[in-house]
Amino acid sequence: MALLPRLEDAQLSPDARAVFDEIRAARGSDYVNDIWRVLANDPALLRRTWEQTRATMGPGALDPLTKELVYLAASITNDCEYCIRTHTAAARAKGMSDAQFTELLAVVGLANQLNRLAAGTRVAVDERYSD
Amino acid sequence: MALLPRLEDAQLSPDARAVFDEIRAARGSDYVNDIWRVLANDPALLRRTWEQTRATMGPGALDPLTKELVYLAASITNDCEYCIRTHTAAARAKGMSDAQFTELLAVVGLANQLNRLAAGTRVAVDERYSD
Amino acid sequence: MALLPRLEDAQLSPDARAVFDEIRAARGSDYVNDIWRVLANDPALLRRTWEQTRATMGPGALDPLTKELVYLAASITNDCEYCIRTHTAAARAKGMSDAQFTELLAVVGLANQLNRLAAGTRVAVDERYSD
Amino acid sequence: MALLPRLEDAQLSPDARAVFDEIRAARGSDYVNDIWRVLANDPALLRRTWEQTRATMGPGALDPLTKELVYLAASITNDCEYCIRTHTAAARAKGMSDAQFTELLAVVGLANQLNRLAAGTRVAVDERYSD
Amino acid sequence: MALLPRLEDAQLSPDARAVFDEIRAARGSDYVNDIWRVLANDPALLRRTWEQTRATMGPGALDPLTKELVYLAASITNDCEYCIRTHTAAARAKGMSDAQFTELLAVVGLANQLNRLAAGTRVAVDERYSD
Amino acid sequence: MALLPRLEDAQLSPDARAVFDEIRAARGSDYVNDIWRVLANDPALLRRTWEQTRATMGPGALDPLTKELVYLAASITNDCEYCIRTHTAAARAKGMSDAQFTELLAVVGLANQLNRLAAGTRVAVDERYSD
Repeated sequence: MALLPRLEDAQLSPDARAVFDEIRAARGSDYVNDIWRVLANDPALLRRTWEQTRATMGPGALDPLTKELVYLAASITNDCEYCIRTHTAAARAKGMSDAQFTELLAVVGLANQLNRLAAGTRVAVDERYSD
Repeated sequence: MALLPRLEDAQLSPDARAVFDEIRAARGSDYVNDIWRVLANDPALLRRTWEQTRATMGPGALDPLTKELVYLAASITNDCEYCIRTHTAAARAKGMSDAQFTELLAVVGLANQLNRLAAGTRVAVDERYSD
Repeated sequence: MALLPRLEDAQLSPDARAVFDEIRAARGSDYVNDIWRVLANDPALLRRTWEQTRATMGPGALDPLTKELVYLAASITNDCEYCIRTHTAAARAKGMSDAQFTELLAVVGLANQLNRLAAGTRVAVDERYSD
Repeated sequence: MALLPRLEDAQLSPDARAVFDEIRAARGSDYVNDIWRVLANDPALLRRTWEQTRATMGPGALDPLTKELVYLAASITNDCEYCIRTHTAAARAKGMSDAQFTELLAVVGLANQLNRLAAGTRVAVDERYSD
Repeated sequence: MALLPRLEDAQLSPDARAVFDEIRAARGSDYVNDIWRVLANDPALLRRTWEQTRATMGPGALDPLTKELVYLAASITNDCEYCIRTHTAAARAKGMSDAQFTELLAVVGLANQLNRLAAGTRVAVDERYSD
Repeated sequence: MALLPRLEDAQLSPDARAVFDEIRAARGSDYVNDIWRVLANDPALLRRTWEQTRATMGPGALDPLTKELVYLAASITNDCEYCIRTHTAAARAKGMSDAQFTELLAVVGLANQLNRLAAGTRVAVDERYSD
């Protein structure tokens, strides 16, 4: 069980309810992910987190699928099951193919390996990349 | 100083020299990054790491720039300065704009924040995403 | 199942039993957390870990609740479910309110986000903070 | 050098300048930390990050010094030099003593140790803490 | 459920089948770990990962048991349950005793603690160890 | 500069001085690493940390060189420069060869890669390894 109750719609404060309305409108779906139902215990934290998510993950200089892949790369490196499962679903909904997913995994695996080879050898950054 | 010597071309074993030839041909440049000069102390490790890098980062279902962004997302999450600086340069060379870079940073920051909110609340994965 | 057996009281060596007596006396409860029952497979490791825990988490310049919050912040950053659940219970027992818990989560989330923004931009430490 | 330019006041866009005005007013000081000067390259990211920081770190159910300690615990676990140095300074400004700082370090060290003992033994969460 | 299907032998492509043949020959067993059945969705990734594993974990300047202990130390630090459980089994098969396992845990716990004490104090590397 | 002063011998409290005497006797050298000079600001923390280090890293079921390799594997995964440099020196002093060091790096790199492949695929632990 979560460490904070997962609030049903009937349990939401008016402020939390307003955020849920925005989530539903933005997603075009009545379904609200459980992390929002848990964060709803602190409506101010819920609002800040939702607004940041909406502003960050929407279209911009990077397209929404690329943003999902970047989000996944960080979440896989941190081994966050909740985030990996929900954002894999989001990436799939935005068109991620099986081949794109396994290439993503391969790149994340490679980066984590080379991150440690750099750490363990203490190689200094090449002069041309250090300024 | 690195914990293993950074080998100059004249110090390379024939096996390491052969890998450097491949790196130069693939990159279309005489410059070889210092991490390869440090890994050259173990030519078998150098060869495996280079072949994996070439196979992983080349064109595929994901384009090379997207792969660099994914690589950066993992490396930023691990705070690997060597990898962040060299792959930011690689992403820039493949066309990453300032706006794409700051959006990447914003997504990585958001993911790391939500990874911890999920961890701290112990929210279970929604049933619809857990199988 | 754990990778080492969870020892029942009847299975404890005399050295491990002595540590359990101290845990029970310090906690004022007969209940001993399962991690101690697993560490009891190596009585010397059990003793060192217990003595360090008692010395570190007791009252000092920081009060015990603040220490639990700090402990939680590290454990959430590492996503250690065992530690998060047991120390959330400990913090609750020491008076942590719902509002304090969600503020803790918000601070940990913010720190993890800014840790990555600092990593990704490679911003140098301001001169006034670097010496 | 940072991967994005550190903007001087004269280089700020009007939106970034407005955030700097708020930072100066909130801090009661003309000095603005360099991370804000780097984030100012993306005024929208600057604004979101600043507003989140102000809302999260201000007084609430936890006092500002406790929030700094929690922030430090996460940042030390992630080994973020920028965040450790600037928030140690902030904690000192809010009254953190030498003894409080070394106790914080001891708790963070203990948590990181026990996080790994729990991970390595795969001890299950005690029934009484798992629901 | 895994995010990619776990392939049965009858579902393998010829390239993946060839890798499974090599795994079975190298291990002297018909059993193939599930991670290979999941990676088999991308036969090229399967081949690269298997060849790297075989080349890295075999006998060399370090004996195979020591390599398993090193592998475990990294996996425990990252809290990878899959890797901890499968490589504990591998280390056991290569002769790891209970006492060796608990000493490994103690060393990993100590390192993680001191890693954070070094991070939190920002102690500079002693001159004699920094070049 | 470190966040706590690096104490010279003349600045040590009697309790810290006693620990330094033990370190010198155990190491058979007058040199004391700087991390101990920083921890000496809290003599109780210094004593606990030193006693734990001595008890953990000494000969046991694992030989001292193997313990150094395990310590390095954790420290490389956490990218702790202080710990990597000082314990590479310690491992060298205990006989670690160049070939052993590069094999260690290869194993740590492989583990970090596979830790992320397991995380990203969410592969469940094989039934035979999960109990």
